[in-house]
Amino acid sequence: MLVMHSTDFHAHHSPLGAYASFTCGRHGAGGGLTIAGRAPAQHPLTVGWMAGDVLHELPFNASADGVSLDNYAEEVGGVSSQVQRHILDGSQRRYGAGTDAWTAGNFAFRIYTPVWPLPDPERDGEALLLQRLLPAVVCELHYDNRAGSEDVDLVFALRPGDPVSHLLPAVAEAPAVTWQRQFALAVLADEGAESWVHWDVHEYLREHRSHRLGGLAGASRRIAAGTQGSLRLILAFHNEAPVTTGIDAKPWLSRGYPTLQSVVAAASQTYDGIVARCQEMDQELEQSGLDPHQQFLVAHAQRSYWGNTHLLDHGGTPLWVVYEGEYAMINTFDLAVDQCFYEMRRNPWVVRNILDQFVRRYAYHDTLCRPPEDAAQRAQRLTMCRDPHRLHELVPEPVERGLPGGISFSHDMGVYPHFMPPGESSYEISGLAGCFSYMTCEQLYNWICTAVTYVQGSQDMDWLRRNAGVMNACLRSLINRDDPVPSKRNGLNSLDSEACAGGWEITTYDSLDHSLGQARHNGYMAVKGWAACIGLECMFQHLGELKLAVDARDQAQRVADAVVARFDTQRQCLPAVFEGDHDSVIIPAVEGLVFPLQWGLTQALAEDGPYGALITILGKHLHAVLQPGICLFEDGAWKLSSSVDNSWCSKIFLCQHVAEHVFGMIPDPSSHAAHARWQQIGSADWAMTDQCTAGIGRGSRYYPRCVTNDLWLQSGG
Amino acid sequence: MLVMHSTDFHAHHSPLGAYASFTCGRHGAGGGLTIAGRAPAQHPLTVGWMAGDVLHELPFNASADGVSLDNYAEEVGGVSSQVQRHILDGSQRRYGAGTDAWTAGNFAFRIYTPVWPLPDPERDGEALLLQRLLPAVVCELHYDNRAGSEDVDLVFALRPGDPVSHLLPAVAEAPAVTWQRQFALAVLADEGAESWVHWDVHEYLREHRSHRLGGLAGASRRIAAGTQGSLRLILAFHNEAPVTTGIDAKPWLSRGYPTLQSVVAAASQTYDGIVARCQEMDQELEQSGLDPHQQFLVAHAQRSYWGNTHLLDHGGTPLWVVYEGEYAMINTFDLAVDQCFYEMRRNPWVVRNILDQFVRRYAYHDTLCRPPEDAAQRAQRLTMCRDPHRLHELVPEPVERGLPGGISFSHDMGVYPHFMPPGESSYEISGLAGCFSYMTCEQLYNWICTAVTYVQGSQDMDWLRRNAGVMNACLRSLINRDDPVPSKRNGLNSLDSEACAGGWEITTYDSLDHSLGQARHNGYMAVKGWAACIGLECMFQHLGELKLAVDARDQAQRVADAVVARFDTQRQCLPAVFEGDHDSVIIPAVEGLVFPLQWGLTQALAEDGPYGALITILGKHLHAVLQPGICLFEDGAWKLSSSVDNSWCSKIFLCQHVAEHVFGMIPDPSSHAAHARWQQIGSADWAMTDQCTAGIGRGSRYYPRCVTNDLWLQSGG
Repeated sequence: MLVMHSTDFHAHHSPLGAYASFTCGRHGAGGGLTIAGRAPAQHPLTVGWMAGDVLHELPFNASADGVSLDNYAEEVGGVSSQVQRHILDGSQRRYGAGTDAWTAGNFAFRIYTPVWPLPDPERDGEALLLQRLLPAVVCELHYDNRAGSEDVDLVFALRPGDPVSHLLPAVAEAPAVTWQRQFALAVLADEGAESWVHWDVHEYLREHRSHRLGGLAGASRRIAAGTQGSLRLILAFHNEAPVTTGIDAKPWLSRGYPTLQSVVAAASQTYDGIVARCQEMDQELEQSGLDPHQQFLVAHAQRSYWGNTHLLDHGGTPLWVVYEGEYAMINTFDLAVDQCFYEMRRNPWVVRNILDQFVRRYAYHDTLCRPPEDAAQRAQRLTMCRDPHRLHELVPEPVERGLPGGISFSHDMGVYPHFMPPGESSYEISGLAGCFSYMTCEQLYNWICTAVTYVQGSQDMDWLRRNAGVMNACLRSLINRDDPVPSKRNGLNSLDSEACAGGWEITTYDSLDHSLGQARHNGYMAVKGWAACIGLECMFQHLGELKLAVDARDQAQRVADAVVARFDTQRQCLPAVFEGDHDSVIIPAVEGLVFPLQWGLTQALAEDGPYGALITILGKHLHAVLQPGICLFEDGAWKLSSSVDNSWCSKIFLCQHVAEHVFGMIPDPSSHAAHARWQQIGSADWAMTDQCTAGIGRGSRYYPRCVTNDLWLQSGG
Repeated sequence: MLVMHSTDFHAHHSPLGAYASFTCGRHGAGGGLTIAGRAPAQHPLTVGWMAGDVLHELPFNASADGVSLDNYAEEVGGVSSQVQRHILDGSQRRYGAGTDAWTAGNFAFRIYTPVWPLPDPERDGEALLLQRLLPAVVCELHYDNRAGSEDVDLVFALRPGDPVSHLLPAVAEAPAVTWQRQFALAVLADEGAESWVHWDVHEYLREHRSHRLGGLAGASRRIAAGTQGSLRLILAFHNEAPVTTGIDAKPWLSRGYPTLQSVVAAASQTYDGIVARCQEMDQELEQSGLDPHQQFLVAHAQRSYWGNTHLLDHGGTPLWVVYEGEYAMINTFDLAVDQCFYEMRRNPWVVRNILDQFVRRYAYHDTLCRPPEDAAQRAQRLTMCRDPHRLHELVPEPVERGLPGGISFSHDMGVYPHFMPPGESSYEISGLAGCFSYMTCEQLYNWICTAVTYVQGSQDMDWLRRNAGVMNACLRSLINRDDPVPSKRNGLNSLDSEACAGGWEITTYDSLDHSLGQARHNGYMAVKGWAACIGLECMFQHLGELKLAVDARDQAQRVADAVVARFDTQRQCLPAVFEGDHDSVIIPAVEGLVFPLQWGLTQALAEDGPYGALITILGKHLHAVLQPGICLFEDGAWKLSSSVDNSWCSKIFLCQHVAEHVFGMIPDPSSHAAHARWQQIGSADWAMTDQCTAGIGRGSRYYPRCVTNDLWLQSGG
């Protein structure tokens, strides 16, 4: 049993790769089924049991589940109902890796969301893949009435707010109610189990006849006094091709599940296997050696990851998509680079798939410009300016233009349901400063680091050979962003893409801290760039391109030297940005070290290795900043920047892994407890939330990226 | 210019047969585009113009159209905007048959919704039909800046609440923004006209660059000082097959418009023709001779009718569907029978199409039961009982069961998006009394009356011959519902369908008055049944089935005699129900006379004709009840029942036509003014509303049926 600060929070419960969720858990907030939901459904949701005229239900509903018949007629001389609602205690919630379960007295409710590896459709065929993409969530309501003297009816009912359409024909094993051609609520055909449509739970249980005009999709089963039993449910999802624009793609699952009926039929046949897999997952996590708060964070992150996944079929080619939570951007590269550790342990092909999508459609080539040397000083109070007419007043003019740049990749591929034209993201626009500017240099690093992660983890040398040209282009582009003129190189990203058109480049930490509103001479970027260089060196060695390997290593050395030179020996730390007048310090200075750790390049991380000086000062930096009042909150939670209360959980988890496995600095258990509190209390309305401000979910909600905490499991806890 | 009580009300603006609407007009309520909308969209909607930093807009928006960027970043050092909103006077609204137009100073906004006949797809091919099904609404914003010294930007912007996806490629004439793969906002490519996606109107006008993450779909065009000009818009709708369940049908329009692009392209090519047709419609209505309030009611009813229409393609077979407003039931027969007068003047084939659907899929055959003679007395306080276990306590047991019944038709065909199984409606259920019980006898009358209307209006004798067997079955079923035993027949519907299973049959006036909660011995039903008999007589004469014609005429005579016998000579009126202790009187006693009037059976309506006694007493009845305090409200509005304030506008319009054209009782103009007030003020939130309680829209909102007022035009006003 996990120790939790609160059980009153929402969670995704999602099939794999369907961009679908049955979200529930928050008290008084309802819940429900969505496809492409950017926020939890707020549909009235009744889960419980009825005995006599009393409905006992878990505390999901905000208000009484009343009948709404006023528009049709007034009931005169009819039977007024005397139903009472009793709200069950929702505090006995067990939140496992595969099972989310509530118990209240003799009643239990369990939601099963198995995760298993997805076979590579391009190499392993698709029969097993389609089984595992089954777009359904199965649940169970149980009542132990062995000591009871009164029959009870187990009840699950949902009011989706759209006309609930029909008892689904032709699935003998599982009668179902469907709505919007996209959703079904089905019951396994255990004796007495029913699914139905009505106005109201208690009216249905009195009448046992559906009324198709009612807006309530229901399921129920009588458990006789002296017995015990379950109401076993299938929540099925389906949508039909095509679902996206820009690229016309349909859900891959529609290749195996042509109709809602077929989903229900398949789920009813594999129900037991699903439950067994979830129990196995629960057990594995419990035995992982992680503390209870970490276990919660791992389970919670994984659920929201899968709720944002979508496997699409683009004319027979699989496209793997992870959406960006509430923002729904498609395969945002800032997320992909962090999620690849989780994915490599399960489905390396999805990492390859995303890399290929970026190469095929979302690569572009730019030229660069050189800002004046005092640019940062002159513009440092500027974080954001969206007026292109005033931009030139606020951002200094470049002193040189049209410098050779090179390949990079868009920030994202669009926003659901739209794939952007080739080379364009939905996020980045020209002619502004701050948020929404280009992230050209960082996305270049992201492609390199993700690609190296894929090659090192999969040993897929065929893929590497096919992408040798891209690797080469990446190295040239990376070095040009230091400087196209060899004599001017200092190891740092020093120029801006001309895509910015008067603005300048930003990083993924655009909204962390205004010190980080520029990519140039940025400490976080420098270490990530160093990792990219040693990764490229490794790739060129695999390819036997020894000259290029040397170029990459030389650039890595330049970066390392540059970073070491900026170390503030007095404060024993690195500044966040290496120019201008910034005094904030940040934990993500060490973030880039995760890559050599994953890649098995242990020599690069050794204090007595080729980059020992860099590693040594980064260790000192981390030690110096991980202090209360600097980068620790009072309760032990990590604080990414000394100057703001704004943090991303995904990045904290990743940096905790670096701290422990590069520097032997084991995070204090109080941090895990605090981060669990951020989710269970601070972000209770939204399932997993990445961006928290002093522990309150503020942005990046309903988010997939926090699976960076899978790194905790990779190293044995 | 129409005289209106208020201009602050919603209206449907819909293409033909697309189940789509651009609904707007209510102040502070927003508006927007829907497909299959059961209520008006409530999206923020900006329509107006911007000059300097002031946005002048029509009063559609509830609140300022603010930027919502908080989730991404705080703007620091940026440019804070000083935009002011000025709400234009919305009172200058001209509500014509084809054009809904606002003017405010130099600004005008016009929405064009042409209505033209739809060619019969089964007889006339579909090229012209597809042109007329064009699923788009076109609009125009105009600004006369000839005397102005400052440029202004015309602006239309809508925040649909879903990710707005893209500038639609490949329609050179009309760049567009699309969302949900279903909607597009396009501008005709007049010089300087733009469509865009952004966070905010004034930011876009400052920047003139789209930001794809913004949730606002916008269009704008600069009108330079010293000039005048228009921003011409296309609001396009599209959805892909299939859209329904039960029957898998796709929109017919998808045969001609495979994509949103194709809709936009077609609308841009026919824009001028659309505007011209609307101007022609405006003029026709203005010259119709109807008074201004009647003109408003005609225009308003027609808009809501089309917003509820849907032409579906079921494997190549066209299915004409009219949904039931906020309830979205499919082809509710109670509506179809009233709408057929409107349809026969334009598209007789849709009437035939619905009749055929009822014969093919929604006919059923029943048996009958005989209630005890004192049933009405024993149960008269009962209007509604939904508990099947208690029904037998409240409804007397039949004294005879299993009597031969016959053919009838379901109340409806389902509720969007679901077509019910054959012979079942979504509305009717067994084992209850009151609302939601079966309407077996009335739907039989409805099929007969609609079929006769079709044959008499179209002279389609082929169709009649193909349906001779159905006509025959209908006559037998009708007579059996009086009594299977000839000697017991009294002309009235005296038995109940056993489909009711313990309850009894109701009528479409289920919720008008509890006196009307039974179909048996009901005065409204009797006159409608009489009309059905003389209609059948006429059909059998066409068919040369003279024996059957005599049977029908004999039954008509029995009905007429029965009704005449119940005339209360003291009060000079008919009771609503011919048994029990009811003292209410109702206008719809005369409703059935509309049929012989439409069928050209003038002899049947003559006081010196074969049914002269019936016509005479119905004239006396109408005269007696159309008195203040009985069936007139104080302001002159009609009141369908003396005992309640609940009325249906569609039925009032129909009965007004009967009053004038059968009895020469011309409705007082104060009634039209009052009924217009019910809509413009009492139902302002909902577009056309049928069911009003003392002038306030209460149910049957967003409703198609009020096109019964087209009868006013048929007779020359």
